[in-house]
Amino acid sequence: MTRRLIERVFAPAFNNPMLAQLHDGAVFDVGGVRLAFTTDSYVVKPLFFPGGDIGSLAVNGTVNDLAMCGARPLHLTAGFILEEGLPIETLHRVTESMADAAREAGVLVVSGDTKVVERGRGDGLYVNTAGVGVIEHNLTIAPDQIQPGDVVILSGDIGRHGVAVLAARGELAFEIPIESDCAPLWRYVESLLNAGVEPHCLRDLTRGGLATAIVELCGKTFDFRVIESAVSIAEEVRGACELLGMDPLYVANEGRFIAIIPPHQCELALATLKQSGCPSAAVIGEAVGDGQGRVWLQTLMGIERTLEMLSGEQAPRIC
Amino acid sequence: MTRRLIERVFAPAFNNPMLAQLHDGAVFDVGGVRLAFTTDSYVVKPLFFPGGDIGSLAVNGTVNDLAMCGARPLHLTAGFILEEGLPIETLHRVTESMADAAREAGVLVVSGDTKVVERGRGDGLYVNTAGVGVIEHNLTIAPDQIQPGDVVILSGDIGRHGVAVLAARGELAFEIPIESDCAPLWRYVESLLNAGVEPHCLRDLTRGGLATAIVELCGKTFDFRVIESAVSIAEEVRGACELLGMDPLYVANEGRFIAIIPPHQCELALATLKQSGCPSAAVIGEAVGDGQGRVWLQTLMGIERTLEMLSGEQAPRIC
Repeated sequence: MTRRLIERVFAPAFNNPMLAQLHDGAVFDVGGVRLAFTTDSYVVKPLFFPGGDIGSLAVNGTVNDLAMCGARPLHLTAGFILEEGLPIETLHRVTESMADAAREAGVLVVSGDTKVVERGRGDGLYVNTAGVGVIEHNLTIAPDQIQPGDVVILSGDIGRHGVAVLAARGELAFEIPIESDCAPLWRYVESLLNAGVEPHCLRDLTRGGLATAIVELCGKTFDFRVIESAVSIAEEVRGACELLGMDPLYVANEGRFIAIIPPHQCELALATLKQSGCPSAAVIGEAVGDGQGRVWLQTLMGIERTLEMLSGEQAPRIC
Repeated sequence: MTRRLIERVFAPAFNNPMLAQLHDGAVFDVGGVRLAFTTDSYVVKPLFFPGGDIGSLAVNGTVNDLAMCGARPLHLTAGFILEEGLPIETLHRVTESMADAAREAGVLVVSGDTKVVERGRGDGLYVNTAGVGVIEHNLTIAPDQIQPGDVVILSGDIGRHGVAVLAARGELAFEIPIESDCAPLWRYVESLLNAGVEPHCLRDLTRGGLATAIVELCGKTFDFRVIESAVSIAEEVRGACELLGMDPLYVANEGRFIAIIPPHQCELALATLKQSGCPSAAVIGEAVGDGQGRVWLQTLMGIERTLEMLSGEQAPRIC
């Protein structure tokens, strides 16, 4: 639905080349300095979940969108919409968590705003963050840079965030010891760049999971081939998904990304990611030419099927 | 309440010099380029009112915060929180209005985000915008630059936005032909800078009105003296305020600002503002030394009393 809104409502209204890129953030030049600029609102329910909360999510989500532009995250703004009656203690916990996450990600929260709405016009607390980052290299890292032959590297195992939030909602009939993967990703991107890797595109996996991210990146002239057996999924996550009838390829993440890398740099990129804190990074597929923008999944059963974008809401208010 | 939250919750958590300035936005340097960065969330009720709507408000409010930092507004992000059931037509109208306001203000909406919450967890539509601007001069325009002797210039008549929104809510028992003053302010700031005026501080009048803005700017070592008879208020606004028992000095504005100017530039600043589209710009007061941070109002009746910050909610969800 978000994509439909973008295509039908927002893109025509705000028509400009930066928005048209459908990238994680806008990249532009000011006085010879290349900047990235992005925003996300966070409405996750519940506010606190194993491995994170709306505060750490709001910092890492926006920091990661900057990182996916190849930008070093610098500064964030924070906008809070508080529902009347929200305990001040809750706001304290969330802001402390944001401050911790900002420190870990190396950014400052430099400006903010607070609005209050009546009871029944919010849900405790919504947070918006916007972020500015600086691009310190000359690469163009964007969806339109992907070329046939590029390999797809996944930085870690998938599905933890979505399952952790559903578990925190009490929507699972069983206990599950899974924490969200919510984490800042710039350190890994920086390692890649420092090692001389020249990624064609980076994309963090959020709402809609790995499958939606890859489908979104498909151009009109090439396909992706993905090997399901190469995608790392923790046993507990796989088990929870089976019980819930959910496909882990579509479950949300908040600390995983895919890097689309020219093939001759595949080993360098993989080794760099493994060394810099992504031990289960793996090549999961490749871009192949003469396609029509489809994602072909070679399933665990050995058959091949196409992946579609997630439609409808598998798990609303997951971020 | 917002100020208490800032002082007790946000400032300690996000402790950093930029946030500590309590300015309309953060100012920082990236690679030798001076940038301003700010955000606001908008929860105005109703979404549409005479002279504007939540969309034009969300653009102008953030553009104006950048202008008050002395920065040329460049790019905005937009984050939407939609309540389930919001008519798509409403979203269309709001985004078209945002696009028009962005064109008028000379900015691009370059990145965005949409979240959907369940019925009863929002109020139609909340909008957050964040903005980046560039500072193309070497002045420091900030509250801590104000000096005793500086004059206070008000750019136009006050109270239109607050009265227009209350009227649109049907909270007035009478019809009133007043439109919000919602408008972008950079053009006036740019005129001042181009004329060689070196403002010590700029502040737009929003929630809490003129009185709250001036009280917020008071330092610990100087007072402000304000002449009430110099403050321009339209007859209809004054009449509506009298009937409602509201003090127009505390009523919200979205297209007015005060400029704190060194005294020798007073005439230049005033003439420049009048020429550039603020015909009723006027000197309304001055900063005086040896004070304790009080605002002294010489009232229409000729007596002198102190102005306090607005506490409690004179008119909630006005922006």
